[in-house]
Amino acid sequence: MIGVAVPRREDRRLLTGAGTYLDDLDLPGCYEAAFLRSPHASARVLAMDTTAAKALPGVIGVWTGRDLADLVKPIPPKVTNPKLYDVPRYPLPPEYARFVGEPLAVVVATSRHIAEDALELIDVDYEVLPAIASTGAALAPDAPSVHDEVPGNVAVHLTQTAGDPETALATAPHRLRERFVVARGGGHSMETRGIAASVDRATGEIVVWPCTQSPHYTRNLIAYFCDVTEDEVRVVVPRDNGGGFGPKAQFHGEDAVVPYLARLLGHPVKWIEDRSENFVATMMERTQVHDVEVGFDDDGRLLVVKNVFQHDQGAYCAGLQVPTITLSTLPGQYRIPNIHTELIACYTNMVPTSSVRGAGRPQAVVAMERMMDRIAEHLGADPAQVRRVNLVQADQFPYQVGLTFRDGSPLTYDSGDFPALHEAVLDRFDYAGERDRQRAALAEGRLVGIGLGAYVEGCGLGPYEGARLRLRRDGTVLVTLAATPLGQGYETVYAQIAADGLGLDMRHITVATGDTASIPFGQGSFASRTTVTAGSATLQAARRLRERILDVAEVLLKTSAANLCFVDDRVCVVGEPDHGLTLTEIAQVANIGKHGITLPPGVNPGLETTSYFAPERAAYASGMHAATVEVDPETGQIRILRYVIGHDCGTVINPMLVDGQVLGGFAHGIGNALYEEPHYDAAGQPQTTSYLDYALPSAVEVPPVELVHLYTPSPLNPLGVKGAGEGGTIPVPATVANAVEDALRPFGARITSLPLTPAKIVAALTAG
Amino acid sequence: MIGVAVPRREDRRLLTGAGTYLDDLDLPGCYEAAFLRSPHASARVLAMDTTAAKALPGVIGVWTGRDLADLVKPIPPKVTNPKLYDVPRYPLPPEYARFVGEPLAVVVATSRHIAEDALELIDVDYEVLPAIASTGAALAPDAPSVHDEVPGNVAVHLTQTAGDPETALATAPHRLRERFVVARGGGHSMETRGIAASVDRATGEIVVWPCTQSPHYTRNLIAYFCDVTEDEVRVVVPRDNGGGFGPKAQFHGEDAVVPYLARLLGHPVKWIEDRSENFVATMMERTQVHDVEVGFDDDGRLLVVKNVFQHDQGAYCAGLQVPTITLSTLPGQYRIPNIHTELIACYTNMVPTSSVRGAGRPQAVVAMERMMDRIAEHLGADPAQVRRVNLVQADQFPYQVGLTFRDGSPLTYDSGDFPALHEAVLDRFDYAGERDRQRAALAEGRLVGIGLGAYVEGCGLGPYEGARLRLRRDGTVLVTLAATPLGQGYETVYAQIAADGLGLDMRHITVATGDTASIPFGQGSFASRTTVTAGSATLQAARRLRERILDVAEVLLKTSAANLCFVDDRVCVVGEPDHGLTLTEIAQVANIGKHGITLPPGVNPGLETTSYFAPERAAYASGMHAATVEVDPETGQIRILRYVIGHDCGTVINPMLVDGQVLGGFAHGIGNALYEEPHYDAAGQPQTTSYLDYALPSAVEVPPVELVHLYTPSPLNPLGVKGAGEGGTIPVPATVANAVEDALRPFGARITSLPLTPAKIVAALTAG
Repeated sequence: MIGVAVPRREDRRLLTGAGTYLDDLDLPGCYEAAFLRSPHASARVLAMDTTAAKALPGVIGVWTGRDLADLVKPIPPKVTNPKLYDVPRYPLPPEYARFVGEPLAVVVATSRHIAEDALELIDVDYEVLPAIASTGAALAPDAPSVHDEVPGNVAVHLTQTAGDPETALATAPHRLRERFVVARGGGHSMETRGIAASVDRATGEIVVWPCTQSPHYTRNLIAYFCDVTEDEVRVVVPRDNGGGFGPKAQFHGEDAVVPYLARLLGHPVKWIEDRSENFVATMMERTQVHDVEVGFDDDGRLLVVKNVFQHDQGAYCAGLQVPTITLSTLPGQYRIPNIHTELIACYTNMVPTSSVRGAGRPQAVVAMERMMDRIAEHLGADPAQVRRVNLVQADQFPYQVGLTFRDGSPLTYDSGDFPALHEAVLDRFDYAGERDRQRAALAEGRLVGIGLGAYVEGCGLGPYEGARLRLRRDGTVLVTLAATPLGQGYETVYAQIAADGLGLDMRHITVATGDTASIPFGQGSFASRTTVTAGSATLQAARRLRERILDVAEVLLKTSAANLCFVDDRVCVVGEPDHGLTLTEIAQVANIGKHGITLPPGVNPGLETTSYFAPERAAYASGMHAATVEVDPETGQIRILRYVIGHDCGTVINPMLVDGQVLGGFAHGIGNALYEEPHYDAAGQPQTTSYLDYALPSAVEVPPVELVHLYTPSPLNPLGVKGAGEGGTIPVPATVANAVEDALRPFGARITSLPLTPAKIVAALTAG
Repeated sequence: MIGVAVPRREDRRLLTGAGTYLDDLDLPGCYEAAFLRSPHASARVLAMDTTAAKALPGVIGVWTGRDLADLVKPIPPKVTNPKLYDVPRYPLPPEYARFVGEPLAVVVATSRHIAEDALELIDVDYEVLPAIASTGAALAPDAPSVHDEVPGNVAVHLTQTAGDPETALATAPHRLRERFVVARGGGHSMETRGIAASVDRATGEIVVWPCTQSPHYTRNLIAYFCDVTEDEVRVVVPRDNGGGFGPKAQFHGEDAVVPYLARLLGHPVKWIEDRSENFVATMMERTQVHDVEVGFDDDGRLLVVKNVFQHDQGAYCAGLQVPTITLSTLPGQYRIPNIHTELIACYTNMVPTSSVRGAGRPQAVVAMERMMDRIAEHLGADPAQVRRVNLVQADQFPYQVGLTFRDGSPLTYDSGDFPALHEAVLDRFDYAGERDRQRAALAEGRLVGIGLGAYVEGCGLGPYEGARLRLRRDGTVLVTLAATPLGQGYETVYAQIAADGLGLDMRHITVATGDTASIPFGQGSFASRTTVTAGSATLQAARRLRERILDVAEVLLKTSAANLCFVDDRVCVVGEPDHGLTLTEIAQVANIGKHGITLPPGVNPGLETTSYFAPERAAYASGMHAATVEVDPETGQIRILRYVIGHDCGTVINPMLVDGQVLGGFAHGIGNALYEEPHYDAAGQPQTTSYLDYALPSAVEVPPVELVHLYTPSPLNPLGVKGAGEGGTIPVPATVANAVEDALRPFGARITSLPLTPAKIVAALTAG
């Protein structure tokens, strides 16, 4: 079944409105919570009076951070570094607010509207403090401190070096430098965040239904805040989840507060984030500032790249994944003997940073790919040719980049064929023909440009993911995954993988996800990691279950397993389809014990297998995009005339679903390239807090795409797969920016800031 | 920790009233069910009018068997045989009632008293049919049929033969025959049956809290009746359970009806059996009639035993375990070259038969041990000596009895030392001295007698049992068992076993049981099987988890596992107690993945191990009891003057708990010997339906006991254990009956019917 475009099993219910999302859960009598959020980017809470709020009819309770001393424990960063200057992030900080939207108190009431009315009655006396709202402001010599304990506001400063970049820069025949400012938006999932919790009064179990990408991570942190063992918390992710894209892999303060209060009250409590809250309180990516310098020879061959960048970590470090990914993504598909890549992550008075689809890679790709075009421009060479001479070659894998991965191991690309991918995309794009058409258009006075953008994506990361397979009483196989889907089609894909591992038609296979009671350990769905990890675990567990089933069948059928095969839902002797047993019959013996008071000698009971797959290092997906754009010099509007995506994620389990991921990712990339920017003013007040202010692309804004696939299996996992969830997004800003600058080249206009809003285009034309 | 008398972890909560039983569960707004039960032993329901009942305020609904067509599916017998004439047993039979107490309709109301009031309003038109209320009546030539499809009322007729019993009988120097009528009572657990169910409105899961000995068996049958897969049903046995003793291992009709209605109504429903219902509707053992004939030589050496017995199966066959156990228990500790053992199981109009502690063995032991005394009497020999010459010798193990076990394998005793046990008991009893004292008492005109009784008990049966061990985030190990305790102290015993397997102090170990969501397969706690099966599974899983933990530690500590040991909750290098890691730290790496995005090479994640242990055949516990009694010839009252129990259940995990089992079993045996008999009149009306009519022994009736232990480990499991739950019960009726007949020997009175009520003693004295 691997490689077959099986229709998604999820679609019928989703398309008929029968999906089950968090807010669809029927929790009788459930209370609703609402959070009081800081209106200031930096403030000290001098006093908070909740008397009037508590007196409102329908209000069950009001708690400030000072009232919930059990919760004054820091939420640890998801990814950390020994050099991080960490500051505690509390679910409900008792004294200081560090960003607009930070929760400071919570109301629980019989309805959400009562809870929101009660918020209005809370009287807070704030001492407003100076705020930092950009990395530039954070790093200014006289900048106030976001946290007193971190003067200078640098959360972490990391440098990686390969070769001797300073000497190489000093001696390179050609040098170019530029500053790129790259903004990225938030996750903007259709379904906002939310969490419901209840204490099972019969068992004492705290049952939590979160909108999360990481059920076990959420469980472990709730257990930590409620001071119970993880077995006393059951996290059940609702069957459907309206998108994640990164922020839902984070643990936000509300995720601790709601279960804690459900337990305190002995009553179900729910909180569904509204869209206004989502804009200010859900983690996001924001702006990075890249100072990049390259040295190269007359052929455009890279001799050295130096990239120093500022990363906005927000008010707390929820995790260092984004900037450390940026740090190591810079070299991309190119052989670069000397590299200097340097991260300065700053604390600012804005919501903390989360990974968002692409997770720090689009910014690095902008820095690298924009410079490839600048090299071509400088040499009067063709940008495709400049890339070609620099590409890592197909026979160089495993390729050691010269940098270090964030686990300390050498950064190593496992497999790929960048030249083949490059040529395949140019071929499909009809690059020469497109250049001819560009010249013809320019001759007509139209501003048409062509851009290329290549990337690698480290994906399929550990530490591990698990799968548990079980033969059920009815002869079907249940696949239980720890990871939970956000719409990717796990019920389909993992049934395909299990079908292959079992050698059984996938109609006998059901996939269940997201319930920590069903499989004890897991990480979650993020970082384009799940097909690699959970997919491999599923394959391993399925192969093992097949062996286990055949071991039982060989005893019962008195033959050797080598003579047995699956025919539909039966295990039969090869060539004797009438001589066999149904899977139900096998389950009856080995799992139910129907055979009687002893099992037939040789039968090992309990046909369930569990496998955890821990990849030794990241697999590297790669891709190359090519775009033709036309710019309207009057309005600054950008129209994408053509867009070709070349994509290599190794083995493809379900081509239709991979295409869906790539195209969805591309839409996200278009948002990053042209529209999305969470804007804060200098006082740290978010300015884009509704879809009137924040331009999220719709179907109208996303142009048609042509897709080219290459398949270089990863040697690091038994399926040969790599991640496919983010590749569509990563190079879009760089590719579009390259095309736009190419279109504006007659005016010498410089494109150094993303997204490419019409105002910026007009300004660039004016400056150029 | 194996062999240590660790105090029970359960006792604090039980002794302080903090136990959590089914009726303690807090299910908000729970409805309550009550059942309309047949007042007739055999009747056809011509019409049932529930209109008035439905109209009673507070009644949610009333359903007859005809209303719930989904439930008209037979409950399969728990143990069956190809020769069984099976008849369907329905949860709520739609047309025929076959015993008094059979549920025919159910009311669900907002309270139990309203539900019971509504029962009174149901108008039923019965056609009363002739009833059968004993095996004698069932087998009479002109007997009416309990079921039309089984004329003659024989459910199953099974014979087992070793050697040539007919020839041996014809040629034996001496022959004796007798008929023994042996009644047994019910389980009479302090907590009656009960079940509560609820549909989790968030997940759709049917959650069921039953008072059961077999959570997975219950889950599977509920799934069958609700027509869902077993994963859609979660059975959680409340933490505490007020006794089982056999009947709670059965699936009764109410167990299907209550979850079905909870699902139908989308609302929690509970039914707690009241004591009146328990007397008529909970399965029980009742009377067996044994015709036994022995042939022997001048030394009392057994040449042949023939035993033909009638077993009362009740109105349906819930399982054939009781009579088939009787069938194979007969030979006991003796070498018998020729055996004929024959079962005639009859349908009668009484509640079906369940196993009850001892499960068919006490009856076989009465037949065999009473005849050993008769042989001694016939030869003028000492009963101890007659036994001695017949005992299987210590060097004869594994000993093949010559019969077949019910799985078709040769009936084989694994280990034991019957002569040593025999002598140890006689020694402790001071047998010769006791005989002297008996003679002195007889000389004084006191009716004092001595009785012996020996048995073997096949225990530790399969098909299998499982255990799952997991290292938790806090460094403790959670042991999850499929089997659920009925008061035996699993939280203590399995922590001891796991501690031994892990090499870890048991304070770091927690035991959880009875939740089908935590381990997918299991059988249950019955038939003295769990320490053998779940104990071995726990040991295996613990040893494997220790290896897995050390595998991780050897990577992290950069040494070999051979150099590592547990010190408290740390894994340390041997001889370097400061060089180590806590179990929490190991869990953080291998289970949480805290190490980062890749695991250290060589670390296999997911420190959880699952083991299922399937014994190849039964282990045989054995025992020998000795009693001195005095009979008051005026009142027929029996006073037990001394009682010595010799007990061999192989390795003992916790001597205090084994002693508790033996003494509790002995109390049960005293009930069987002297007091308990569920009496039905000839029309099938139960006559003993309260503790005013039914004599259950209390502490006052149970005499002091002296205990002697022998330990012959079983070679069939890694712990060497055998079952300990029933041995205290099994030989008590035979031993006491032997002693009483010995006391009455001066009068030549014959003891052939149990229990030994005063009326029977007086009658025997009058007849003798």
